[in-house]
Amino acid sequence: MSDPRSGKGSTGSPWKRTLTTPTSESTPRPPRPVNEQRLYGLNACLAAFAKRPDDLRKVWLLETRLAQLKAVLAWCVKHRLGYRVVEVGDLDKLTGSRHHEGVCFEMVKRAPMTLTALLDKSANRDDASLLVWLDGVGNPHNLGALLRSAAHFGISGVIVPSASSLELSGAAARVAEGGAEAVDIVRVDDEPRAIAALRAAGYAIAATVPREGLPVHDADLPARLVLVFGAEGEGMSASLIAAADLRLSIPGSGVVESLNIAASAAILFSEYRRRYRL
Amino acid sequence: MSDPRSGKGSTGSPWKRTLTTPTSESTPRPPRPVNEQRLYGLNACLAAFAKRPDDLRKVWLLETRLAQLKAVLAWCVKHRLGYRVVEVGDLDKLTGSRHHEGVCFEMVKRAPMTLTALLDKSANRDDASLLVWLDGVGNPHNLGALLRSAAHFGISGVIVPSASSLELSGAAARVAEGGAEAVDIVRVDDEPRAIAALRAAGYAIAATVPREGLPVHDADLPARLVLVFGAEGEGMSASLIAAADLRLSIPGSGVVESLNIAASAAILFSEYRRRYRL
Repeated sequence: MSDPRSGKGSTGSPWKRTLTTPTSESTPRPPRPVNEQRLYGLNACLAAFAKRPDDLRKVWLLETRLAQLKAVLAWCVKHRLGYRVVEVGDLDKLTGSRHHEGVCFEMVKRAPMTLTALLDKSANRDDASLLVWLDGVGNPHNLGALLRSAAHFGISGVIVPSASSLELSGAAARVAEGGAEAVDIVRVDDEPRAIAALRAAGYAIAATVPREGLPVHDADLPARLVLVFGAEGEGMSASLIAAADLRLSIPGSGVVESLNIAASAAILFSEYRRRYRL
Repeated sequence: MSDPRSGKGSTGSPWKRTLTTPTSESTPRPPRPVNEQRLYGLNACLAAFAKRPDDLRKVWLLETRLAQLKAVLAWCVKHRLGYRVVEVGDLDKLTGSRHHEGVCFEMVKRAPMTLTALLDKSANRDDASLLVWLDGVGNPHNLGALLRSAAHFGISGVIVPSASSLELSGAAARVAEGGAEAVDIVRVDDEPRAIAALRAAGYAIAATVPREGLPVHDADLPARLVLVFGAEGEGMSASLIAAADLRLSIPGSGVVESLNIAASAAILFSEYRRRYRL
């Protein structure tokens, strides 16, 4: 096999560097389009490529990742996309992280989904369906961890108020280990209207609270359910708690003030899965 | 009230800086004793102080934390311990983190607990008891997240092989949000002997595996149980899986390869708690 770093493979080699390969000079680079983002982490990148290869724009990787990314590089050659074998320090800079796991993809962002489209996915009111609403959660690692668990349990949508700073960053996608590709994120402008639309589609709204909710192990969980999680520290808005049809808590020792939101979410998803299949 | 930064409060003021106050020159500092460590994060520090105030050595804090740490500073004055109001950049350096939440304590490390002492805490073989064994887990954030959930559910001990690189770092303690003070960590040299001692004390050993274990929602869980978690990626050692009395899995969609270890742990703790009180 030709040396992949040289970019001088024979015509048709999967390692051939194409004309649009990013150059080795790391600066200045042209700014990337706002609808593109850098994904990193091996599982995050592979899941994105598996789901939407047409969104791939560029690839940077360590030599040690060549074997695992062979199909991706073959795709790059076929579609004249740039790829480049780089050093660890380059990936640190490209991703702004040391947790890139030897690979970075520049990809078109997933198209945002509307609440209407999300509700259409489970339009049959007899079907079990679990959705998540994040009220004020701002930590990308918590979002990533929650998306990984949501994907594991087959949850199809996470609703985030438009005012939230939360977005699916490269860091969140990496922590989600591919789960971010399986779960749609819907941003809603008008919260009361969104709640009304969810109710009209047969969903009950459950606020998760650290204390004084129904113990989740014994609670009746409706088959069509939106689990609302509030920000760590401040919790969720009073208006959302008031709007909820039920409040759920995870009983514990009281030794720590609360569970981490990603841990709470995993437990609640599992409790739902114990009763219903998605 | 006198300016706490000046260190010139009248005698008896809780804000008085004592003779052993750390100096404002951040370097050079004498190396700290190996049995001491720097804790940070408000809940981690407050929990450590509440549980073992005699282990406190020094305190650094932002001015904005004065009110929340009033009792700690009063203790410092009474016991002639140094404390100092500092700037954010100082705390960044002292803790090696930007997640210090405005406070850093230098404290004596918790004394290590032996397996014998841990088993003595639940010596009655009729009592329900849940322990955790971490085989190869190396990520301090996963350890911290697991300890927070363990504390929430009243789990008293986590067993770590001596060969493991895992230790209760300041980062892990911060993520545990005080939970690290409630859960004892026991290091074991001789794994087969430790497994035998656990069995002799009436514990069943359950390996948690991503696939092909008993679905945890339906599985019979013994009341005295050690949950074994393996490293992310590699999983747990074949010898531990072979030694286990049962294997447990968390059923899911198969969309992601596995759950995060802290999410898995939270779900398994909750499933145990659904059946038994600790």
